[in-house]
Amino acid sequence: MFTTLYTSKDVVSTSLTGLALMSLAAAVLCFVGLSWSNERWRVPTALVGAACLVTSIYYAGATGYWLSSGAASAGVRFSAWYTVHPLQIAAVYFYARTQGPVPVGVFWRLVGASLLMVFGRWLGDAGFFNPTLGVLISIGFWLYILGEMYFGAMPEAVRKSSRPVRFGYFWIRLLFTLGWAVYPILHFVDVVIGVGQAPSIIVLYSVFDIVNLIIPSLIVLAVAGQDRY
Amino acid sequence: MFTTLYTSKDVVSTSLTGLALMSLAAAVLCFVGLSWSNERWRVPTALVGAACLVTSIYYAGATGYWLSSGAASAGVRFSAWYTVHPLQIAAVYFYARTQGPVPVGVFWRLVGASLLMVFGRWLGDAGFFNPTLGVLISIGFWLYILGEMYFGAMPEAVRKSSRPVRFGYFWIRLLFTLGWAVYPILHFVDVVIGVGQAPSIIVLYSVFDIVNLIIPSLIVLAVAGQDRY
Amino acid sequence: MFTTLYTSKDVVSTSLTGLALMSLAAAVLCFVGLSWSNERWRVPTALVGAACLVTSIYYAGATGYWLSSGAASAGVRFSAWYTVHPLQIAAVYFYARTQGPVPVGVFWRLVGASLLMVFGRWLGDAGFFNPTLGVLISIGFWLYILGEMYFGAMPEAVRKSSRPVRFGYFWIRLLFTLGWAVYPILHFVDVVIGVGQAPSIIVLYSVFDIVNLIIPSLIVLAVAGQDRY
Amino acid sequence: MFTTLYTSKDVVSTSLTGLALMSLAAAVLCFVGLSWSNERWRVPTALVGAACLVTSIYYAGATGYWLSSGAASAGVRFSAWYTVHPLQIAAVYFYARTQGPVPVGVFWRLVGASLLMVFGRWLGDAGFFNPTLGVLISIGFWLYILGEMYFGAMPEAVRKSSRPVRFGYFWIRLLFTLGWAVYPILHFVDVVIGVGQAPSIIVLYSVFDIVNLIIPSLIVLAVAGQDRY
Amino acid sequence: MFTTLYTSKDVVSTSLTGLALMSLAAAVLCFVGLSWSNERWRVPTALVGAACLVTSIYYAGATGYWLSSGAASAGVRFSAWYTVHPLQIAAVYFYARTQGPVPVGVFWRLVGASLLMVFGRWLGDAGFFNPTLGVLISIGFWLYILGEMYFGAMPEAVRKSSRPVRFGYFWIRLLFTLGWAVYPILHFVDVVIGVGQAPSIIVLYSVFDIVNLIIPSLIVLAVAGQDRY
Repeated sequence: MFTTLYTSKDVVSTSLTGLALMSLAAAVLCFVGLSWSNERWRVPTALVGAACLVTSIYYAGATGYWLSSGAASAGVRFSAWYTVHPLQIAAVYFYARTQGPVPVGVFWRLVGASLLMVFGRWLGDAGFFNPTLGVLISIGFWLYILGEMYFGAMPEAVRKSSRPVRFGYFWIRLLFTLGWAVYPILHFVDVVIGVGQAPSIIVLYSVFDIVNLIIPSLIVLAVAGQDRY
Repeated sequence: MFTTLYTSKDVVSTSLTGLALMSLAAAVLCFVGLSWSNERWRVPTALVGAACLVTSIYYAGATGYWLSSGAASAGVRFSAWYTVHPLQIAAVYFYARTQGPVPVGVFWRLVGASLLMVFGRWLGDAGFFNPTLGVLISIGFWLYILGEMYFGAMPEAVRKSSRPVRFGYFWIRLLFTLGWAVYPILHFVDVVIGVGQAPSIIVLYSVFDIVNLIIPSLIVLAVAGQDRY
Repeated sequence: MFTTLYTSKDVVSTSLTGLALMSLAAAVLCFVGLSWSNERWRVPTALVGAACLVTSIYYAGATGYWLSSGAASAGVRFSAWYTVHPLQIAAVYFYARTQGPVPVGVFWRLVGASLLMVFGRWLGDAGFFNPTLGVLISIGFWLYILGEMYFGAMPEAVRKSSRPVRFGYFWIRLLFTLGWAVYPILHFVDVVIGVGQAPSIIVLYSVFDIVNLIIPSLIVLAVAGQDRY
Repeated sequence: MFTTLYTSKDVVSTSLTGLALMSLAAAVLCFVGLSWSNERWRVPTALVGAACLVTSIYYAGATGYWLSSGAASAGVRFSAWYTVHPLQIAAVYFYARTQGPVPVGVFWRLVGASLLMVFGRWLGDAGFFNPTLGVLISIGFWLYILGEMYFGAMPEAVRKSSRPVRFGYFWIRLLFTLGWAVYPILHFVDVVIGVGQAPSIIVLYSVFDIVNLIIPSLIVLAVAGQDRY
Repeated sequence: MFTTLYTSKDVVSTSLTGLALMSLAAAVLCFVGLSWSNERWRVPTALVGAACLVTSIYYAGATGYWLSSGAASAGVRFSAWYTVHPLQIAAVYFYARTQGPVPVGVFWRLVGASLLMVFGRWLGDAGFFNPTLGVLISIGFWLYILGEMYFGAMPEAVRKSSRPVRFGYFWIRLLFTLGWAVYPILHFVDVVIGVGQAPSIIVLYSVFDIVNLIIPSLIVLAVAGQDRY
């Protein structure tokens, strides 16, 4: 029934189950934290909690699939990315919104850009057009999101906030700048160059999901907790 | 054990798992949102949350079935539609009800019409009578529901509400007008013309479940959040 | 792995999964409703919510069993009935109790009668004695329950209540009178006459579980909601 | 895939699934009841709720194992007993504690005795020493627990309480006296005499889990509910 | 389908399922306890609750894997340890933090050390470098954590607290000193000496997870409960 011997040497199953459990713990902490956060922090906390929960369920399924079939195509990650990336971007928007008015148009543009960022990469991966083009489109929308996070109305709203809020915003933005860079890079290596699903690619994806998902979620939770006093 | 290779190229599994995760996130946000919405918004929020949760579980099951058997008959969607469509229609009724009195008879007629709308299509699909007849019956009840949403007591109740409430009602109604049109159309193509369960049909159904289920649910949640200040 | 093709034409799987999702939605609404009901309505609402949840899990298991083995013996329904019927009867007792004192002896007699009603039918179905005798014993206890609901201390307590409370009690009693009649009848047809598990029997059981479980639960929820103003 | 035909005639599967659903319902009611009980009743209610939940999950797993393998060794029950018996004994301690001071040493001795009671029986069942010796050790610790419940600081604390509290304590103690007697007796019949896992043994275990687990849990819940006025 | 007969004699399955149920009960009690603890105790209680929940899910999966494949490599425990150990260490930090200011740098160093402690052992177990080296690295980080717990800012913060708080801190520290010693020792026996996955190793790991996880979690819960009066 199992194609893979599940030991430490199988870095893939260790990383997949590890991520499933880690993001479950993060989701639980976010949802529990909702009850003691300041009311205005509830929306961003709920959004990152939902993103962690979805990721946890995705990884639990991916583990089962890996143990049964010995495959863990990065392709299936798209089904989670379609949900997780917009949730994370929306959380950043509402993070800034707790500190001051941010036009609702920014929200729509950001969520749209994050969906198109995933969609472009997926179209390439699924073979609808050239994978390199998909990566380039994806990078374009990612740069747009970064532009809003660096120069738009959101940094303006956060500028005069308390130290933990500014600090949290700075780190989340940094992670989205450096950590998200891994998606086009790994995608390029995996699909365009054609390394395929080497275990090291799978593990790298998993590690960057900690950096890109769990750490920003815990930052939001920590800032929400410190802004309550 | 698996009949399908689960990669990006398999658009069906990507769309099924994607929908399962996306509607789970929507359900979680609705239920979390219950705690901070104004009290009178709790019933519509709970109804759309339940609709999203049911859809999520349905899609999780459909993914497993697809991976095991390579089939994802639209027929099985009926088991979810019997629950989801009445829940959504009831949510619209209670949405209007938050703004003013709407006769309880409207509620019964709407829920009855939504059940019969599904039942008619199902009778055709299951072969109890001519599929075309089933589609026509289904369209009839759908038009009745639209009539109530455009000309009945519900638009009357909403007319003098605050801008976000009117705006939300307008968009939900538009989605039920344009988005629900896809059910008889796809059903006609699938069953009456006899295209069968082509992957593109399955993906179209999934995409329209985002438009028809997740977006209206998030609209209800957003309006409930804005009406609290 | 699957003995049944899961399409609309397989009315059994459609009805089993449909019921699983429908009773899950009802359970979710009951539990969410707990937070906004008047305090004295919490016990009946929690009881019907638990009954819906148990039914949902039962039907989810029955679906899996049906898809794997092509069998859905009414026999297995007993495992749910042993829990669901006493919960429903207890909910009726606490429903009446919200309106005035009802002797606690009524509670014990009702719960005992509901357990014995299931037990008698089960003894017949499992072959411990003649199935006809089991049906007759079951009918006897059912009539006793109806007697308490029509002439005992419970209608007395409800008599002077507000209109929605009396109305709800009337409808629940009617459903228990007409809807529960189906259990001995179907059981007689299935076991005594020996039709066996024809799909139509399974579907009829499922349909009557909507009538007998989900509708009374939603009535309790609706009455609890209206009694709060 | 299934070794057993799942009908009423298979008393084992009916009793296992029945217990899984019944203890789930009890757990749900306990957890829902937490929100309306008096604050000091929360600890015992949470403990019996956790005991019911654990039992429910155990029985769900045991059903799956029975359907797949046709075996339901009483041995596997130990994995649940190690958790459930200490939880129940701790609930009795905190039950008495709501009424007055009980030395914390009683708590440690009771929990220790309940763990050793299970451990002794398990060592015999697993063949580490003579099964008869295991049963005798188990009886010794059980008698110690009964001694604390009849003559120790707990009955002292409860003595001057309100009638429902005394009544509940009396019944729980009686169930632990008569109902728990079944564990060494059945274990003796099953392991020492060597009847093996006859279906009747499995069903008797299941029935006594209703008597020993679900009824005391509901007593705690009912007393907690009545003590709030 | 099953490679192992699941009876008391199979100490592995008994211990795995037993731990799954026991840590589930602990998690449930922690989360329920959140609602009645003093507000400042919520963070440590939520952290140990999340640690118990993650462990429970890990053990449930490990049971299934054991029953299917007859293997329960300690290697797979790493996927849980990566989450559980940092959560526990963070809980200790926030435990001390409830009693007075502890520099946030201590938190980062402790969480980092706990991650590196697991990572070092894992690198050895997965064969990236010599297993003995992994054990030594792991012991180094563990000693650092103990140093912070004995001589750092945390014992300083706890020193003048109420008796239960000091008592709880003393016991948790003692368990982390004695109980965590088992991880390098067992790992040494298992991987370096090469005993392999003997059932006794698996059972010892499981027993020490009770000592190291469930007991400290219940201590946190108990202290949080006593600090509320």
